[in-house]
Amino acid sequence: MNKTLTTLYQNLDTENIDSNFQFILFGGTGDLAHNKIIPAFYNLVARDILTNKYTIIATGRRYKNKNEYLAALYKSLKNKKKKIDSKHWKKLASHLEYFQLSFKNEADFKKLENHLVQKDKTEKISERIFYLATAPKFFAEIAKKLDKFNLLNAGFKTNNSKLVIEKPFGHDFKSAQKLNNTLSKIFSEKNIFRIDHYLGKEMIQNIMVIRLSNPIFRALWNKEHIDNIQIYLNESEGVKDRGKYYDDTGVIKDMFQNHILQILSLITMEEPENLSAAEISQKKVEVFKELADNDLSNIDEHIVRGQYSSNIIENKNSKKSIKAYREEKEIDPNSKTATFMALKLFLNNQRWQDVPIYLKSGKRLNKKEAAIAIEFKDDFHAAYTEDQKLSSNILLIKIQPEEGVSLRFNTRKPASNNKIVPVEMEFCQSCQQFFNSPENYEGLIYDMIAGDKTLFTSWEEVSYSWKFIDKIQKKCQEQKIKLHSYPAQTGGPKAADKLLEADNRIWQDKK
Amino acid sequence: MNKTLTTLYQNLDTENIDSNFQFILFGGTGDLAHNKIIPAFYNLVARDILTNKYTIIATGRRYKNKNEYLAALYKSLKNKKKKIDSKHWKKLASHLEYFQLSFKNEADFKKLENHLVQKDKTEKISERIFYLATAPKFFAEIAKKLDKFNLLNAGFKTNNSKLVIEKPFGHDFKSAQKLNNTLSKIFSEKNIFRIDHYLGKEMIQNIMVIRLSNPIFRALWNKEHIDNIQIYLNESEGVKDRGKYYDDTGVIKDMFQNHILQILSLITMEEPENLSAAEISQKKVEVFKELADNDLSNIDEHIVRGQYSSNIIENKNSKKSIKAYREEKEIDPNSKTATFMALKLFLNNQRWQDVPIYLKSGKRLNKKEAAIAIEFKDDFHAAYTEDQKLSSNILLIKIQPEEGVSLRFNTRKPASNNKIVPVEMEFCQSCQQFFNSPENYEGLIYDMIAGDKTLFTSWEEVSYSWKFIDKIQKKCQEQKIKLHSYPAQTGGPKAADKLLEADNRIWQDKK
Repeated sequence: MNKTLTTLYQNLDTENIDSNFQFILFGGTGDLAHNKIIPAFYNLVARDILTNKYTIIATGRRYKNKNEYLAALYKSLKNKKKKIDSKHWKKLASHLEYFQLSFKNEADFKKLENHLVQKDKTEKISERIFYLATAPKFFAEIAKKLDKFNLLNAGFKTNNSKLVIEKPFGHDFKSAQKLNNTLSKIFSEKNIFRIDHYLGKEMIQNIMVIRLSNPIFRALWNKEHIDNIQIYLNESEGVKDRGKYYDDTGVIKDMFQNHILQILSLITMEEPENLSAAEISQKKVEVFKELADNDLSNIDEHIVRGQYSSNIIENKNSKKSIKAYREEKEIDPNSKTATFMALKLFLNNQRWQDVPIYLKSGKRLNKKEAAIAIEFKDDFHAAYTEDQKLSSNILLIKIQPEEGVSLRFNTRKPASNNKIVPVEMEFCQSCQQFFNSPENYEGLIYDMIAGDKTLFTSWEEVSYSWKFIDKIQKKCQEQKIKLHSYPAQTGGPKAADKLLEADNRIWQDKK
Repeated sequence: MNKTLTTLYQNLDTENIDSNFQFILFGGTGDLAHNKIIPAFYNLVARDILTNKYTIIATGRRYKNKNEYLAALYKSLKNKKKKIDSKHWKKLASHLEYFQLSFKNEADFKKLENHLVQKDKTEKISERIFYLATAPKFFAEIAKKLDKFNLLNAGFKTNNSKLVIEKPFGHDFKSAQKLNNTLSKIFSEKNIFRIDHYLGKEMIQNIMVIRLSNPIFRALWNKEHIDNIQIYLNESEGVKDRGKYYDDTGVIKDMFQNHILQILSLITMEEPENLSAAEISQKKVEVFKELADNDLSNIDEHIVRGQYSSNIIENKNSKKSIKAYREEKEIDPNSKTATFMALKLFLNNQRWQDVPIYLKSGKRLNKKEAAIAIEFKDDFHAAYTEDQKLSSNILLIKIQPEEGVSLRFNTRKPASNNKIVPVEMEFCQSCQQFFNSPENYEGLIYDMIAGDKTLFTSWEEVSYSWKFIDKIQKKCQEQKIKLHSYPAQTGGPKAADKLLEADNRIWQDKK
């Protein structure tokens, strides 16, 4: 670790949030609250980011009172963290309230309103943040009830409340539009925070910085120098207990419509004129628009769909059998849902004309690994390629599990007669001993309080990305695109490798 | 260490040299033979590069017979290497002969001729390589005697013998020209191998590969993208037992005329059309010519000369006093010889117009470190520089003691609000656990046997570099350029730092 870094990581930013907000969490007893939201608040407290004025009001049905709820939260936090500092925990707990509420019960909303009004009288609340960490089907219903029971503007300026919603935002363009119509009657676009938790990941937030604050990369970021772009979000796990959700969704809506397209837009967008959320979103929208305009004429040659089959993994002393997707809990035994997709596409603009972009994601692959690979054109001096094949230069932005950047370059093989070998320069961010990578949700929560929408997806982004996804789905159906079978815990369908081999390329996760 | 590298380093090239050469070593009992040449041969034997036909005939006065000589060599090798494999040592010893000879004694040359002629009768000798590892003042004398006593073409084709000479080649243009006139009457330029041992260093041999086999660097290698170039060869040691030589020479002739200018030429030359030694040399000569044409008009502002003074280094429990240069053995107590020099210069060609090149070398500096820093222009996106100063991208080619390449780039400080910090991607060649960097001299000896002159300096390179150095020396005298004093084991004269500060830059070894 270099010295500069040590010093800087030891002094992590602690820009305080001086806001007496009410954070009203629907689905406060659910997995997301337990595993992401509350741990993120714990970290914000531990980093001393929050001042003493806020309240987190978690709503739910499961627990009877605050003590029960806190005990459950503590248990979850303990599972997640090696060490809990009781000072921080106590501080967080003192800001936490538990409010028993059922989405269906209108009286509960009325009670909540009374409660908030009472609090308003004693505390100078600056704003309310309604966070819907619930199943998507309740989004519209809850939003309407917040409006109906006057929860949005009690005691302070109207239209100041924020709505935070988890993905997915609809299941196609039409349903997304319908949901948005409902929400936008209640909240202004400015106050709707659509979460794509990938945008909270450190290395995703780093993409623009890497592109724009490094002259060497900035100068090379176009079709003159880049041969192809690869984005792969490989998961090793199966559908776990989300079978019902997943079987309706599949990899295309679970990973492509949001995470992959968001990453793609950050990598390929034109340079924004400034760093305002609106300007960046506008540049991203241009990419989504181009995708939606894509004619997908060669879709049958450019797409590979797959679904995992069962497999038996033998190790030295053990044998583990892994279920097929169709054998998983809550999955239709004849399901045609794709758990894997690879896609080749082009952006027909000046910067990226004829540069293939390869996208890939799948469940039950042999390795959990998310990364972006920028492969540069092979513009070598001819003299070095006379009797050997050189490797391309590759910039790899590693998203997870390792966070970092590496650059593959060619070097002279020591003690050789000008033999050239590819090696890697590496910067491992997640290995830095003085630094614990923050939770994704830490930055997201910080930004929703601070009102910065850069890490949230705008309605325009969402709408065009759905139009693109809808078009792919339709083409797949029309052209009866094959669903390949791939054994669980392998590298995915062979056809996905052939997609690149046909172009004389390889996936960078397979090198 | 990545997998590719492991595999490749485990299978180091073993291209055999199938040549029954005679390697006649003058100065065979000297330091260079003990510490560099024989250890290099040992490595070549250990790597199984040499076939069974060659003979190394070491000449000298000190030892009476081969056994005495071998015992001394073994001792030196033992000092240098952790482990000597007796199999390799025995093999090397069986190819070694010791021949007692004094340069002054003509009868000895006659005897040597007889000896070689006898060998020619039994062995099919392909060529003789005369290696002058002696004081430079003997170069001409020995060469003439080799000619006079018919040692160059005994028993085989005339004019096939090679001459290898150590630096320095002359002490100014005139003396170099005189020496070259003498040698070139006896040997053709093709057969004169002028050693600059820096050219044998792995990372110096790597410069062209890094430049030309990496499209990302190749595209950026010009004034549009590069802000400045720095080359520093910092030594921590003093003059040791070379006082007499050094006081006549100084840093400018000891380090600049050869090593630094050679590195500079490899970094800045135009791309050669092919990799032949002649073509590469021609491109280097173009750089040397431009240097020699340099008008050095601002020499007083662009040069810093220094000489180390005494210093006391205090540690926790110790106090070490270090002699001043003028107090060292064999040094004139009033010596005006520079032990440090920093120089700023420009190449007025299309590729490098207005790109400052900063050169620096010195003895008794606080750290032994040789590297080339390529600092790129600060072409950042303006939005990121509004409220912070960003660091430049820097490609660092590390020559010694660590060998490797690093790239400084900007990254988002984790958990921050778009704060940007410089970090480094690193490739450490000398850290690779499967690889022992070969001796500099291994490659040099290999190439002189193979007849590849790429790593040797041509007469044209030497002559133009002397013209440039002579010009600097003359200007320094005319303008009475100050000799700064700097305490031993420090960072050199402050004036050298100011040289860059005046341009709003810093030395990359001082960051």
